[in-house]
Amino acid sequence: MRIELTVEYLGYGYAGYQRQKNAMTVQQELEESWRKLTGERVTMTGAGRTDAGVSALGQRVHFDTKSTIPPGKICFAMNTRLPEDIRVTASREHEGFHARYDARGKLYRYTVINTPHASALLFRTAWHIPQKLHVAAMREAARYMTGKHDFSAFCAAGAQTKTTVRTLYAIDIAEDNGTVTLSFCGDGFLYNMVRIMTGTLVAVGKGKLAPGAIPDIIDSGGRESAGATAPPQGLCLVEVYYDNNFLGEHI
Amino acid sequence: MRIELTVEYLGYGYAGYQRQKNAMTVQQELEESWRKLTGERVTMTGAGRTDAGVSALGQRVHFDTKSTIPPGKICFAMNTRLPEDIRVTASREHEGFHARYDARGKLYRYTVINTPHASALLFRTAWHIPQKLHVAAMREAARYMTGKHDFSAFCAAGAQTKTTVRTLYAIDIAEDNGTVTLSFCGDGFLYNMVRIMTGTLVAVGKGKLAPGAIPDIIDSGGRESAGATAPPQGLCLVEVYYDNNFLGEHI
Repeated sequence: MRIELTVEYLGYGYAGYQRQKNAMTVQQELEESWRKLTGERVTMTGAGRTDAGVSALGQRVHFDTKSTIPPGKICFAMNTRLPEDIRVTASREHEGFHARYDARGKLYRYTVINTPHASALLFRTAWHIPQKLHVAAMREAARYMTGKHDFSAFCAAGAQTKTTVRTLYAIDIAEDNGTVTLSFCGDGFLYNMVRIMTGTLVAVGKGKLAPGAIPDIIDSGGRESAGATAPPQGLCLVEVYYDNNFLGEHI
Repeated sequence: MRIELTVEYLGYGYAGYQRQKNAMTVQQELEESWRKLTGERVTMTGAGRTDAGVSALGQRVHFDTKSTIPPGKICFAMNTRLPEDIRVTASREHEGFHARYDARGKLYRYTVINTPHASALLFRTAWHIPQKLHVAAMREAARYMTGKHDFSAFCAAGAQTKTTVRTLYAIDIAEDNGTVTLSFCGDGFLYNMVRIMTGTLVAVGKGKLAPGAIPDIIDSGGRESAGATAPPQGLCLVEVYYDNNFLGEHI
């Protein structure tokens, strides 16, 4: 039986989603909780391998099991064995479902705390930038990023993909009481792409880069022309979409 | 020179605000950061001694110093020596100010995550209650709690105070997307009072207690008639008020 899970986790302290040697990852904790529960060794495939330190509200996962736990109860059972910073928020049977291959889009959110002092309550889930950001300029720059482009300028070196062309449907930048939240909705994202886009938009917000420079950065295709990579803890995988009707739902 | 600080901290992992032997507290971290910075040993008096595990957004603190650091820069200097879960968000010179004796009111906030599964991102700052709460009944019960009462039924044993009469100006209960936030604004709070009021209101929300039972609980004056004490991590000291014009500001 194939099971689909929705998983929330605080990435701070984990070496990302995907299983690794010599480092604790979310996948390992999930697989280990299942082994403790049922004795069964399974592989829990995620929709995306989030980086070390990156959180998720709606990571999707699939695995195959011979267990007789009712699919809808699996989330409750797993949560009894998981650490508090990982929660399975939904589980169901879903024959033929593949968490990664079936994904049609993703929604990522990046949180910036833009106050003179960092937040003691949110340091695990936000990037602190003391300098006041010019959000209108960031929104203007973001408009140049949306659409179908070759995003190789926003891709970390060492990534291997067939194509670096992606469609970014929308970037929404909200400002509320010292918090700037950047939401990115696209059909897929290259390695570090959201963090590099965020770093570039923050450079615009600081006045170090003009919004009109974005098209040239995209055309250059060179990683060195874009901004710095934003730190991982501000990033969160909010949702993975599996049908093509997701546009406009969240943004 | 007397200095006033505003301090934000994540209480999870600390044994409360006030200095203790054999346990790490926020006061100790603040005093230690000052000693590292200036070599000076001072006492940092807080407006209230928050319990172990309780957070603050706006704890107020005073201390006396001979340091020549400009008062407005003290917050930036201290933050270079403090752990990430404690931030001084403001500092100024304030002759004659006493953080505790001068306080005229406080605003506390209690956060309940009311979804089937706990939150992996917020487990350090919220109480998870899976059973759906009846918020309208909680609001009705809260109306009986507001006003000037002898709150000894909502005070933990072992507390020593001259009087157990307090005025609760307002209790606001907001519900948003699975999160129930209870805000309590009053002239002062007894030991564990907000946590016991929250536990009692949650009992009402679960249908275990009728809203109309609240006046009898208050009249009884007995701790055993009120609800259980809510766990500390959901509680946050949001603001301390030093003049009498605070009413209606936040609620």
